[in-house]
Amino acid sequence: MQQISPPPEQITPTAEIATATHGGRAKCLQRLVRMDLPVPRTVALSFATVHKIAAGEMPDMKALLAPFGDQPLLCVRPSSEDPDWGGPGAVLNVGMNDALYADLCKKIGTEAATAVYMRFVQGYAIHVARLDPDMFDGLSLEGHEGLRQVLDAYEDETEEPFPQDPEVQLSGVLRSMARAWEGTTARLLRQAKGAPADAGLGLVVQEMALGLGKGECGSGVIQLVSSATGLPRVTGRYLSQSQGRDALRKEGASIYLAKDPRGPSLEDLAPEAFAQLIDYTRQMRIRLREEMQTEFAIENGQVHVLDGVRIRRSSRAAVRIAVALAEDGIIPKEEAILRVEPRAATEMLHRQVDPDVPREVIARGIAASPGAAHGRVVFSSTAAQAAAARGELCVLVRRETTPEDIRGMHASAAVLTERGGITSHAAVIARGLGLPCVVGASDMKVNLRRNTVAMADGRVLKEGDAITIDGTNGNVISGEAPLLEAAQDDAFQMLMSWADDLRDIGVRANADTPADAKIARDFNAQGIGLCRTEHMFFDPGRLTVMREMIFAAEEADRQSALDQLLPMQRNDFVELFRIMQGHPVCIRLLDPPLHEFLPSDRDGIRSLAEALDRPLSDVERRIEEMSEYNPMLGLRGVRLGITMPEIYDMQARAIFEAVLEASTEGAAVVPEIMIPLVSAKREVELVKNRVEAVAAAVRTTSGRNFNYRLGVMVETPRAALRAGEIAPHAAFLSFGTNDLTQMTYGLSRDDAGRFMQTYVHQGVFPEDPFHMLDAEGVGELLKIGADRGRNARKDLVLSICGEHGGNPESIAFCRAAGFDYVSCSPFRVPVARLAAAQLAVRDRLKFAD
Amino acid sequence: MQQISPPPEQITPTAEIATATHGGRAKCLQRLVRMDLPVPRTVALSFATVHKIAAGEMPDMKALLAPFGDQPLLCVRPSSEDPDWGGPGAVLNVGMNDALYADLCKKIGTEAATAVYMRFVQGYAIHVARLDPDMFDGLSLEGHEGLRQVLDAYEDETEEPFPQDPEVQLSGVLRSMARAWEGTTARLLRQAKGAPADAGLGLVVQEMALGLGKGECGSGVIQLVSSATGLPRVTGRYLSQSQGRDALRKEGASIYLAKDPRGPSLEDLAPEAFAQLIDYTRQMRIRLREEMQTEFAIENGQVHVLDGVRIRRSSRAAVRIAVALAEDGIIPKEEAILRVEPRAATEMLHRQVDPDVPREVIARGIAASPGAAHGRVVFSSTAAQAAAARGELCVLVRRETTPEDIRGMHASAAVLTERGGITSHAAVIARGLGLPCVVGASDMKVNLRRNTVAMADGRVLKEGDAITIDGTNGNVISGEAPLLEAAQDDAFQMLMSWADDLRDIGVRANADTPADAKIARDFNAQGIGLCRTEHMFFDPGRLTVMREMIFAAEEADRQSALDQLLPMQRNDFVELFRIMQGHPVCIRLLDPPLHEFLPSDRDGIRSLAEALDRPLSDVERRIEEMSEYNPMLGLRGVRLGITMPEIYDMQARAIFEAVLEASTEGAAVVPEIMIPLVSAKREVELVKNRVEAVAAAVRTTSGRNFNYRLGVMVETPRAALRAGEIAPHAAFLSFGTNDLTQMTYGLSRDDAGRFMQTYVHQGVFPEDPFHMLDAEGVGELLKIGADRGRNARKDLVLSICGEHGGNPESIAFCRAAGFDYVSCSPFRVPVARLAAAQLAVRDRLKFAD
Repeated sequence: MQQISPPPEQITPTAEIATATHGGRAKCLQRLVRMDLPVPRTVALSFATVHKIAAGEMPDMKALLAPFGDQPLLCVRPSSEDPDWGGPGAVLNVGMNDALYADLCKKIGTEAATAVYMRFVQGYAIHVARLDPDMFDGLSLEGHEGLRQVLDAYEDETEEPFPQDPEVQLSGVLRSMARAWEGTTARLLRQAKGAPADAGLGLVVQEMALGLGKGECGSGVIQLVSSATGLPRVTGRYLSQSQGRDALRKEGASIYLAKDPRGPSLEDLAPEAFAQLIDYTRQMRIRLREEMQTEFAIENGQVHVLDGVRIRRSSRAAVRIAVALAEDGIIPKEEAILRVEPRAATEMLHRQVDPDVPREVIARGIAASPGAAHGRVVFSSTAAQAAAARGELCVLVRRETTPEDIRGMHASAAVLTERGGITSHAAVIARGLGLPCVVGASDMKVNLRRNTVAMADGRVLKEGDAITIDGTNGNVISGEAPLLEAAQDDAFQMLMSWADDLRDIGVRANADTPADAKIARDFNAQGIGLCRTEHMFFDPGRLTVMREMIFAAEEADRQSALDQLLPMQRNDFVELFRIMQGHPVCIRLLDPPLHEFLPSDRDGIRSLAEALDRPLSDVERRIEEMSEYNPMLGLRGVRLGITMPEIYDMQARAIFEAVLEASTEGAAVVPEIMIPLVSAKREVELVKNRVEAVAAAVRTTSGRNFNYRLGVMVETPRAALRAGEIAPHAAFLSFGTNDLTQMTYGLSRDDAGRFMQTYVHQGVFPEDPFHMLDAEGVGELLKIGADRGRNARKDLVLSICGEHGGNPESIAFCRAAGFDYVSCSPFRVPVARLAAAQLAVRDRLKFAD
Repeated sequence: MQQISPPPEQITPTAEIATATHGGRAKCLQRLVRMDLPVPRTVALSFATVHKIAAGEMPDMKALLAPFGDQPLLCVRPSSEDPDWGGPGAVLNVGMNDALYADLCKKIGTEAATAVYMRFVQGYAIHVARLDPDMFDGLSLEGHEGLRQVLDAYEDETEEPFPQDPEVQLSGVLRSMARAWEGTTARLLRQAKGAPADAGLGLVVQEMALGLGKGECGSGVIQLVSSATGLPRVTGRYLSQSQGRDALRKEGASIYLAKDPRGPSLEDLAPEAFAQLIDYTRQMRIRLREEMQTEFAIENGQVHVLDGVRIRRSSRAAVRIAVALAEDGIIPKEEAILRVEPRAATEMLHRQVDPDVPREVIARGIAASPGAAHGRVVFSSTAAQAAAARGELCVLVRRETTPEDIRGMHASAAVLTERGGITSHAAVIARGLGLPCVVGASDMKVNLRRNTVAMADGRVLKEGDAITIDGTNGNVISGEAPLLEAAQDDAFQMLMSWADDLRDIGVRANADTPADAKIARDFNAQGIGLCRTEHMFFDPGRLTVMREMIFAAEEADRQSALDQLLPMQRNDFVELFRIMQGHPVCIRLLDPPLHEFLPSDRDGIRSLAEALDRPLSDVERRIEEMSEYNPMLGLRGVRLGITMPEIYDMQARAIFEAVLEASTEGAAVVPEIMIPLVSAKREVELVKNRVEAVAAAVRTTSGRNFNYRLGVMVETPRAALRAGEIAPHAAFLSFGTNDLTQMTYGLSRDDAGRFMQTYVHQGVFPEDPFHMLDAEGVGELLKIGADRGRNARKDLVLSICGEHGGNPESIAFCRAAGFDYVSCSPFRVPVARLAAAQLAVRDRLKFAD
């Protein structure tokens, strides 16, 4: 079926031009025309017309050229639906031929006229006639003689004279641009940027405003705010006697727009034109509801607006621009919310490598925790702590990290691992701490014996060498790269406050330590959705007691160790409750297998044997006995709670006693206790019974009452499937999507790094499912769990607390499934707040339609 | 609400007696009465009546005693709904008092009369008056004097004379039996055997046939077949001048029933009574449709039938008895099928520890693979192979087994491990090999350095000590216990052929080797449902090549190793196809992580380094690099096929070339190729494309055509959830319930052993889910997968190939879900065939109702 396309149409205020049929540039030009800005005469070719041109079917060229008079001089620019999708380069000066050349020589002088003609011949030769660009090498490119040489060279190569008929020229240009768009490489490139397979190209044919000639002539661009900061500042470049984007290309020759102490400016040179440009650009901002860059030409002092382009902007500039537009009443707050990409919020919270300074990337890995930092390489947690003690910045480089490394990570400015994926231990902890982190940098090799790391290019880094970790894009950079500071400025705070007013799903933070909790509060998290208690046991003083507990042969010894841990745990919780000021704190009971608390290296085992006063062989044997083939699927979570119930008893007591202590000082604290790794209803019943008994005991001893809520972490497919029978025993279900993803796929996040890239590359997984929630598989289990849980218990609170919690896509999923809140790393809380607000706004718009 | 109970009723052909109201014994006695057998007068008390008696409400005793005349002499026996539920012991000679004693002295002599009275007084004192049994110690128990002493002792203790009124006596006996039934211990015991909480007890009051007195008097039991074999042989014991089961209790004094070279018999002593007993027992078999034991008494040559009891029987006897009943036309074949417990079939296929010989159990573990064997303890696979080479039987004792132990297991008579559960490596392999195996014997401790194993009782076994492994019930026995041979006899074969005629779901075997395949065919498996190709690579010659392949740094080296493996794989498949004679063979492409093929101990690594001619440190590093945190969830299954496609290419080629080679010799072979560990549709597409390309290449090279079927092993929850999009690319889906269970629960079968007992004991899991398919969780995923798969593709073949495949419960589940076949270890094939037939029969009966 042939598409019926409108004929090429001059852009007038009433012409039928739309982004969907003619592209964004054509539409924008029409808007400028409607604003009565001095836009040169322009004709727009629709996607359908251009598609036919590529197939060899030309439009009525006479009609197309009619608006431009007898001696047209034109430029042709692409106009795709989305400017990000690219397109062929503009071709200027179409229509130049010997006759016009002669006229122009008189009008603007031989030099300028020659430059115009030469520029066109070269462009035509390369883009339309497809000649080798090298063919012009060695030719003189000045004056009549130069022009002659260029035209001769063209004729020699094509065995045809250079076409003189503007219709022939324009046909050739249109055809070459249309075909370039349909080429395979161009298609693949734009598809990679999200363009659909059938994305169309429109073209705009515009009368040239020459920028060359007598009086003040030239071209340039202008914008009213800084692209880097979004703050008001007139920026741009202008170059007299130039065309197109010459002012940007030849920066050495071009001048500033506004008065500037660094050099001359258009404001000095042509204050009226400058004032007009400022005025036009302000008008555009108001009428187009966007911060625009104006592309202009000046012909003998006369300003022509050639184009308007949405200005490029950094994340922080994007926030400021959107907020300013809303504050100026140009767009509503809702729209300001929608205009900021949530992931951009992440960039605001962390320092970044200055993109404008060249840097030497020496390895690449997975961008596991955003932000950038530099420091001296260290290979062990001990070395990291020593460096921190000396006040030195260091970067912890490991093959992978284990819970033993947590203190070392605390002491480091950034973390780099050879192995692991987006949810490996290093990645999860680093995100929690807000540390820049790159994992799975598999082209480097850590040698722990020699304390060196060999890079792919053969260079070997040793302890003390300076590197920079760019966790935002996964780069490892040699030396200390210059960094841009984080920018949680007033505009950002304003945007977030609007977001909080608009969103309709809660946002909590995963926070294990008082430091985490403080960050969470700073970012306005509405509580802690996941407090992993195991991290509290890695403090050296506690670790020893923990190990004594693990090694206790007798009930009494174990209880005595737990009695020592109790006040420590209680203090942890008291502190958390105080920081969270009455906001809910959801505490997960001990989850990891106990062997994670045991040393794995010989030195550690030896000193443990000494600390426990036991034979080395005894300790070794016990550690070996406790080792597991698949720790992820072993004796952990609630299985610990069932087989060694005294541990959970101690934790419950610590929580309740902390509630009493913290409640005396302010608002009543209502803690949430979460049971991990549940797969059967009976597990919940058993733990619930014991927790209730502990609560009763604490109430009796203290003579005071308190409340708490007991819930279940849904991490196994079975818990999701059986949510209907689990929910009656649980006040809340929180989906731990990390483990749930691991089990649904049968895929360990720690081991997936070795093939995840291959998998994503080959399209087996559209995305790393640990990074982007798998809506089809894991998501179905979430829905099943949520539906069955809610059916069984109307007031069941539903949430997600995996690494996915902060992803806009996951938030959309959870919101649609009726979840009450999402919980994510503290540093992702702003992202989540913004993403949630966008979802609410979009829903309103949908209903308003 | 009070239950209305019928009054105690004399058992007549028309009395209202039912098993559900009066118990099995009462019902059986009524049947004997209907057959006109000489049954002494009997009254049956219903469950309701007995329940009231326990509560203190006695029935009308006058009416109850009426049928038995003025001087009743009675016995009271329990009659529960199921004889297995136990019950109080029988009480004989109720009614004995001074008056009757005087009469009996005349009638049967003082000695016999005294014995009768004394027996009753003692029984009454202990069971009804609840006196200490010790009180009769030291008393003379003979003659008038003895009787006097016993009666005096009774009076001294109770301060009451021994009751003389039969009504009082019987009331006391009934009350004590009724209360014994309602006691806590008795209730718990019978509930453990499956009795409901409100299971009732009936009682039968029967006139004594004395068995004492003038002429030939005595008592005994008789049956027509051997309880051990089921073969026709009159067996039983008879004791002159005895009561009750004295003939069995006093075996030294009692005699045989039929003529016997070993000693005197009833047939010699009283040929007419013997002939009558044979006749009565034959009649019972026909009328009661069951092989019965007759309990009888002879009074002055006159035969009384006191009771008929279903004979106790071994598994093999059960089969023969059921088949004989069907062959004699007494029961239909369908009923014969239903009468044999499928798990009993397992017992028939393996040697068993002789239950009649005392044995010393030195450790207990999980019964992981049925059958029994003895041998000398060895602690390594090498030692096992050495022992096998010397022709010695050995038992491989390990902490746990790994794929490296497979050859050692092949060389062993049995396997014992300290760790692991019902689906641990040792258990799975042992079942596959049909080796007796006990795993998770956690009360013993293997010391691999000293090559000893310490038992819980402190004794230490060393290499060379003899032990016996009873894999049927998990016992480890000291020394060489006497064994009973396996018994796949003609009756069994007949039963199985009936089963095959009746069942409506296919049964295949999991078989990896030609040896497995032969067993599978011997057991009439309808094909191989799972051939795990990895086991083919552990042969020492191949393992080296495999390791070269794994260590290959370059594509070409890897290909060269694969080229060497190709002909070996091809030969494996040719042999399998030949053995399976055109039956389908479902071959699973390589599944385990490659590091499983690498050595883990220092010696192994050193010799690998030598074989590869590489530095030791290089090999160590590579092995360490390949290690995984959670191998179960790592780089294995189809993930290997995607990241190193050459391996699957080689396997596909080997399969196709083997098809061509094997097809030339007989029926066309249509292999099935199964992709393991799928979690996404695209994985299937990618492997399918490559397999198709290999097939095309082999067709071109050979110039011959062949067919194959490509399918998917559903082992991840995601594959089940996404079956709808996977099925269009798969001819079949086979559910691997081992891994599916692991992932659904988040539970590694290798690590679950440490807490599974606690979990089952505390009722968290009703059963080990690796042993019994979890119908609620894993089962729902099976149903989801099956439904979505079938909806997407009508001709999709569905099956189950996990360890659950052979379980009757799983078969029922799969049959109900519309599966085409189940696949299980070869040794479980007969169980599966029988279980499947029973399901089909039960369905027919249901529809016939």
